[in-house]
Amino acid sequence: MNLILIRPEELPSGGFSGRVVLHGRRAEHVRTVHRAAVGDALQVGVLGGPVGRGVVAAIDAAAVALDVSADTASAPPAKLPLTLVLALPRPRVLKRCLAAAAALGVEHLVLLGAWRVEKSYWQSPVLAERERYLGLGLEQARDTVLPAVTVRKRFKPFAEDELPALCDGRRALVAHPLSAECPDALDAGALPPERTRPTLLAIGPEGGWLPYEVDKLRAAGATAIHLGPRIQRVEVALAALVGKLF
Amino acid sequence: MNLILIRPEELPSGGFSGRVVLHGRRAEHVRTVHRAAVGDALQVGVLGGPVGRGVVAAIDAAAVALDVSADTASAPPAKLPLTLVLALPRPRVLKRCLAAAAALGVEHLVLLGAWRVEKSYWQSPVLAERERYLGLGLEQARDTVLPAVTVRKRFKPFAEDELPALCDGRRALVAHPLSAECPDALDAGALPPERTRPTLLAIGPEGGWLPYEVDKLRAAGATAIHLGPRIQRVEVALAALVGKLF
Repeated sequence: MNLILIRPEELPSGGFSGRVVLHGRRAEHVRTVHRAAVGDALQVGVLGGPVGRGVVAAIDAAAVALDVSADTASAPPAKLPLTLVLALPRPRVLKRCLAAAAALGVEHLVLLGAWRVEKSYWQSPVLAERERYLGLGLEQARDTVLPAVTVRKRFKPFAEDELPALCDGRRALVAHPLSAECPDALDAGALPPERTRPTLLAIGPEGGWLPYEVDKLRAAGATAIHLGPRIQRVEVALAALVGKLF
Repeated sequence: MNLILIRPEELPSGGFSGRVVLHGRRAEHVRTVHRAAVGDALQVGVLGGPVGRGVVAAIDAAAVALDVSADTASAPPAKLPLTLVLALPRPRVLKRCLAAAAALGVEHLVLLGAWRVEKSYWQSPVLAERERYLGLGLEQARDTVLPAVTVRKRFKPFAEDELPALCDGRRALVAHPLSAECPDALDAGALPPERTRPTLLAIGPEGGWLPYEVDKLRAAGATAIHLGPRIQRVEVALAALVGKLF
């Protein structure tokens, strides 16, 4: 936690300054990881708002009181101009992908159904509590702004009706392991990084997209790319591709 | 598991072909994920040797018999020319870093002590069983060759006595979050990818290297780089940097 995220409703109304009392996870972190004492200044951020500092006013086993001052001129880091279309991973992986996507600065996250996405994943509490896991990523990366999240269980109507507009005007890419099924995929390693170019990146489920799904994503305007002969886990592919593309 | 890893001693002596009987994790995976039946061909690899295929000869609740044929001419994917110096992460993160390092193709992994590496981490069973977690990464990436692993608990003698030779002739980099302490670090995003250039990359512990440690790494020949204003978790930084550099 490189920044303590505070919800606007925790602050006295109408501003970004005032006393906030933390309990639970955040208080525990300030006590045991920061090992903060009265008078110490910690980096804080207001969810959806500015970053600033919080001075420890009181600390005990149950709570930490912080005097927060967050200047509206202190913006969090800019987002990447990235729409990430992610086939819904299984819950344990989803936790890490949500945190990583938020930490990497994804602007818009689409969680999408696909043939190899198990139906049960849609009932996961991780999906329902996604803002919590996104928030962990914001705290890691000292950001305050949640990515926009779109949830689409059905692949085909999304690919046909919504995806073309999302690809339009963007560098649109679908990652797919190198295989005989998709011989004309571009080597992602040979793409030049373009840090400010609006981009859409689609990453498939464990086991990959079906050929039918890759065809649909391509028909919507995306170009197939691969990461070479090595197949990576979803969260490793996500970070490696973001590293490559921006 | 995109490749079933077989130890040479599981094969009839003196070759890369013959019947292998799988139990436990691998058999379970073949049954429940591959959902293989008699006659199906699965991708296999011999640890430290070639890749090939295994045809299911028999399958029941307890075991899977595979008829393996691995041609010595079928090499696993090439390693990245990368020496990764990683401050030993806590055990849960170490598991994922070992698998990711092996999957990404790290050639040589140095697990190093640092001020912010807790002493207890060195007693972790994950460290003792590291080949198991590296093996999971190999299975993911369809590789068969374990990275070389060096374990060095003491930072200073490693940095002074061994690191200069490892940096020599390599693009040597130490990743460190952007901060006032290290104002001349280069932006990793601006480095050109160089896929075949021998590289050493040092990644610090949670909370980062001490300034003293960064100084020592630089004195040994490494250049400080950062990933921008966002601080990433160790495993995300690892994949993003490998994506950027190669």
